Amino acid sequence: MKKIGILTSGGDAPGMNAAIRAVTRTAIYHNIEVKGILNGFEGLIENKWMNLKFSDVGNIIQRGGTLLGSARSDEFRTPEGREKAYKTIQDNGIEALVVIGGDGSFAGAHQLFKEFKLPFVGIPGTIDNDLYGTEYTIGFDTALNTVVEAVDKIRDTASSHHRVFFVEVMGRHSGFIALDAGIAVGAEESLIPERTTDLRSLIHYLKRIRGKKRSSIILVSEGDDEGGAIEIMNKVKAELGDFDIRSSVLGHMQRGGNPSALDRILASRMGVKAIESLLLGEKDIMLGVQNNSIVSIPIKEAISKKETIDEDKLKVMKILSHF
Amino acid sequence: MKKIGILTSGGDAPGMNAAIRAVTRTAIYHNIEVKGILNGFEGLIENKWMNLKFSDVGNIIQRGGTLLGSARSDEFRTPEGREKAYKTIQDNGIEALVVIGGDGSFAGAHQLFKEFKLPFVGIPGTIDNDLYGTEYTIGFDTALNTVVEAVDKIRDTASSHHRVFFVEVMGRHSGFIALDAGIAVGAEESLIPERTTDLRSLIHYLKRIRGKKRSSIILVSEGDDEGGAIEIMNKVKAELGDFDIRSSVLGHMQRGGNPSALDRILASRMGVKAIESLLLGEKDIMLGVQNNSIVSIPIKEAISKKETIDEDKLKVMKILSHF
Amino acid sequence: MKKIGILTSGGDAPGMNAAIRAVTRTAIYHNIEVKGILNGFEGLIENKWMNLKFSDVGNIIQRGGTLLGSARSDEFRTPEGREKAYKTIQDNGIEALVVIGGDGSFAGAHQLFKEFKLPFVGIPGTIDNDLYGTEYTIGFDTALNTVVEAVDKIRDTASSHHRVFFVEVMGRHSGFIALDAGIAVGAEESLIPERTTDLRSLIHYLKRIRGKKRSSIILVSEGDDEGGAIEIMNKVKAELGDFDIRSSVLGHMQRGGNPSALDRILASRMGVKAIESLLLGEKDIMLGVQNNSIVSIPIKEAISKKETIDEDKLKVMKILSHF
Amino acid sequence: MKKIGILTSGGDAPGMNAAIRAVTRTAIYHNIEVKGILNGFEGLIENKWMNLKFSDVGNIIQRGGTLLGSARSDEFRTPEGREKAYKTIQDNGIEALVVIGGDGSFAGAHQLFKEFKLPFVGIPGTIDNDLYGTEYTIGFDTALNTVVEAVDKIRDTASSHHRVFFVEVMGRHSGFIALDAGIAVGAEESLIPERTTDLRSLIHYLKRIRGKKRSSIILVSEGDDEGGAIEIMNKVKAELGDFDIRSSVLGHMQRGGNPSALDRILASRMGVKAIESLLLGEKDIMLGVQNNSIVSIPIKEAISKKETIDEDKLKVMKILSHF
Repeated sequence: MKKIGILTSGGDAPGMNAAIRAVTRTAIYHNIEVKGILNGFEGLIENKWMNLKFSDVGNIIQRGGTLLGSARSDEFRTPEGREKAYKTIQDNGIEALVVIGGDGSFAGAHQLFKEFKLPFVGIPGTIDNDLYGTEYTIGFDTALNTVVEAVDKIRDTASSHHRVFFVEVMGRHSGFIALDAGIAVGAEESLIPERTTDLRSLIHYLKRIRGKKRSSIILVSEGDDEGGAIEIMNKVKAELGDFDIRSSVLGHMQRGGNPSALDRILASRMGVKAIESLLLGEKDIMLGVQNNSIVSIPIKEAISKKETIDEDKLKVMKILSHF
Repeated sequence: MKKIGILTSGGDAPGMNAAIRAVTRTAIYHNIEVKGILNGFEGLIENKWMNLKFSDVGNIIQRGGTLLGSARSDEFRTPEGREKAYKTIQDNGIEALVVIGGDGSFAGAHQLFKEFKLPFVGIPGTIDNDLYGTEYTIGFDTALNTVVEAVDKIRDTASSHHRVFFVEVMGRHSGFIALDAGIAVGAEESLIPERTTDLRSLIHYLKRIRGKKRSSIILVSEGDDEGGAIEIMNKVKAELGDFDIRSSVLGHMQRGGNPSALDRILASRMGVKAIESLLLGEKDIMLGVQNNSIVSIPIKEAISKKETIDEDKLKVMKILSHF
Repeated sequence: MKKIGILTSGGDAPGMNAAIRAVTRTAIYHNIEVKGILNGFEGLIENKWMNLKFSDVGNIIQRGGTLLGSARSDEFRTPEGREKAYKTIQDNGIEALVVIGGDGSFAGAHQLFKEFKLPFVGIPGTIDNDLYGTEYTIGFDTALNTVVEAVDKIRDTASSHHRVFFVEVMGRHSGFIALDAGIAVGAEESLIPERTTDLRSLIHYLKRIRGKKRSSIILVSEGDDEGGAIEIMNKVKAELGDFDIRSSVLGHMQRGGNPSALDRILASRMGVKAIESLLLGEKDIMLGVQNNSIVSIPIKEAISKKETIDEDKLKVMKILSHF
Repeated sequence: MKKIGILTSGGDAPGMNAAIRAVTRTAIYHNIEVKGILNGFEGLIENKWMNLKFSDVGNIIQRGGTLLGSARSDEFRTPEGREKAYKTIQDNGIEALVVIGGDGSFAGAHQLFKEFKLPFVGIPGTIDNDLYGTEYTIGFDTALNTVVEAVDKIRDTASSHHRVFFVEVMGRHSGFIALDAGIAVGAEESLIPERTTDLRSLIHYLKRIRGKKRSSIILVSEGDDEGGAIEIMNKVKAELGDFDIRSSVLGHMQRGGNPSALDRILASRMGVKAIESLLLGEKDIMLGVQNNSIVSIPIKEAISKKETIDEDKLKVMKILSHF
């Protein structure tokens, strides 16, 4: 193997730069040249890339975002788009791809593999942690800490009366951030898409603890079945008019920030492993971390199965708030 | 002087605890007893307070919120409410009050002074920095840093296309946070209540810099005349449909967090000065910081005059973004 | 089971409070009373404790340190000391102990179990991550992030010339912090007690990269066989007199700070599990996290086996710095 | 004026990049070209520089360090060195210099002005805050917050016994960091070069508060007359052998980190003012901030007078610790 391409795709996540650095340096270590494709699959279609040398990836391990840019590409979903992409690959002598992103990105690369036999390794990079086969995705731990620090500040704004806060966090289709952050901030409850939200019980519970707790915090995944934090707040307010109820939508700040130690280490380990896997002839896989080891998961499995919510964590949250 | 009362009133602000600590310890240093009134003027009306000893205020200098609680009191605005409040003061032998809060709180204490000759010193504690006579209010610097860190994260979420972010910050009636934070994050513009917002020029400008800047950030005071960030985003979107435009409302996290060094130092200095001023016979004043010194401002002046926006800073923002 | 005791022992670690909260609330949930023993085993010997109710552990999940205090007890190592400790246990009707600490603390509790049949569950709380049977100990992730943020700042102090920094981190007998932090900050190398340090190779390497890298950072475990950061710096300086070489000893700040999301979640899950394990009749165990699940490890195994350094991580570090 | 040069000199300080950005963009705004001199005065001597365009200074406002590099130059102190420097200035058509640094750097530029009539404006950039004529230097507020956060963590490591910490902070010749940080962390005392340290009183005081305070923190400027933190700790240990006494030297991390809001705003305002001052014909000055306005100070005054320690702050610290 003489030359590979690397790209970041989908929503960006802290730690993507650390992964780019690790892939690049490991490739160079094995005398493989690295093309950094710009703006995800768009860059393949438009033949936009930069050469990545050892020092190009210096001093980026600690930066949020992705130096290669990331985008969602509609054209890549068409056979014509993938033809163009493959032409770029051939023209530049790229023998394999490393794709850092989520399941949509892996599905795209998998398609390329099926159509053109282009080997690829997927590195899970998304703050949502919603990928099957890995305990952590790159960016999740940083996003979690961002949420926790923000909610810690919100809780500071003490009030003499019992104040109820609905705080919305990212997760259009999954509640991993909401559940983990909920435990970490000592929330009363986390409302998540994977479970039917029972507002009646919640309202009952809030009445019961009134005056017993200084403040109540409820985390809400943006994709909860009862709506976002503002919508849910309004529903609750209709029933608890005399409560002091507020909402806050944390928003895009959850995608940024310097990556946490865990995310940097995970990204570094996966970056090294990605090159080693390609050298061993692996070709249509995603990397995951399980039991503290970096493992390979067949891409079909990774994109067809769904990561499930941890029942133990749901229980922990209930017991600790006495909900 | 043998005994004083201290209370925090209005919206809470990081550094209020540092001020409570400083007032308490300085009073004790001068052999004055301290009653900590709970929940602002409500505590005076309801006779709720705690004794504050030296060690009661240990290990709080670094905590957000206020250990005494804070509330807005409607009853205190009535003569009957103030009668009750004064009764608590008399019953407990309180000879003077230290009030940490904003101009509404000082107006209340001033009323008490006028009606019952109760001496008081106001310590400016509000994240809004909207008080006349002081360069900084306690909490402003912390809120500013919270905003700056959040916007730094938002900017990280790189995009290959030009992305425009409207970020809403606190300031119902004033743009101090928006303007200072705007300079600090390198925003394109800060939209503030003190100036008429010209969306037409802004839209024109955004078109002009498209493709020239990686991302554009516009800060919006919640009280801007064209609306909050979401409303303004929608107006701009109607004109710039093909731009990638987002909004984020930072919300309540701006009120919390560990106080910054500046806020702790300011609170400590003002706390010491509050007791010294009372001992010198001052009785209807607010403290301010000017030219690095703690000064006294007659309360009438403090609550009747309005702090104005710094023209120099407006210019700095314009020049640096080339708006 | 009607009543249990809980104590924190050994060096304190961020997340201990979150564990105390979880143990207390879970016990109360199961109608078990909780005695919080003060200052580790000292409190048992001296009969010093506080009752812990639901609200006593509110608002502590986010605080570093331990509200129960922690100490090392020499007297507890003697049979007489343990006799006194057991007397306190009997007098107060304590039926089981939850001990949060490191292997020394567990050895002590194990002794108590052997001598008096007192059931106990150990929760691993130490920043060192040096316990067998668990992927993470409570406090490790926070300490790691503290180190990473400090070294990020150190790296900022750019210099036109190549500057070499030796940064000493905690780890008297283990290199887990140094190794993980080294990967996360992109260090050239981490010098750890588990491997013989080869200063000759390091010096050779530093000469080789001179001028090629802007700055070089080498992490040093305090217990490295060649000495601490200052000692090693001096040895290297003797050979590389014309290099700009500095050292920094991060010190005690590594033990403090608000716990990270991971540490709070781990502490919460282990706290719940500790009570559940006792209710299931387990009696001489340590909890661990493996493969994202909380598991029980026989205490004998936990304290007799040694956690080993991860070869994969050593390799990752070498490859990424091209050492 | 068509072309200017800008350089950063001396120890680097967070906010220098924000100043470079502001100077560059303001110059361009006024149609002035900007040469960024590399590595301080060394770059002038060696004719090393880069052109700075609008986008070259994008996305740097939030970064620590200095993109131009900084160094101390011995050669520039010689007439021959300055001859070479001036040749670079002439060859490149540089009509004025903006120098970001401390008093040593300004003395150098002043010499160049005297010898060759080259106009220059100095922007105070140093974490030490030891410059006459300005309430703040760029970098001081960030360094202060770094110290405060580190000491907050140190204080977390609670102990049942009274523990005394000596924490050394930067300040070889001045105690501004130690004094301000001391107030902000609630230290018992700050030992500073400007005042004779009285260890006898300190030891007496530590004995007196033993058992009354949970922990005692004493900040030490590196340039204190009794030595650094380790030396002083050893002297105190000799007298208080049974106390638990520790030390920590915070070191180089104090120079790095993302600049605080205050430092970024100050740097931005001064950067704009630097160009405006040159356009107004000012030529041998330093900028300062006084009473919230940016002012000019004749360079002779700036480098001949000494900033003095604030007596009010010394008093505040004493009163609040009851030393």
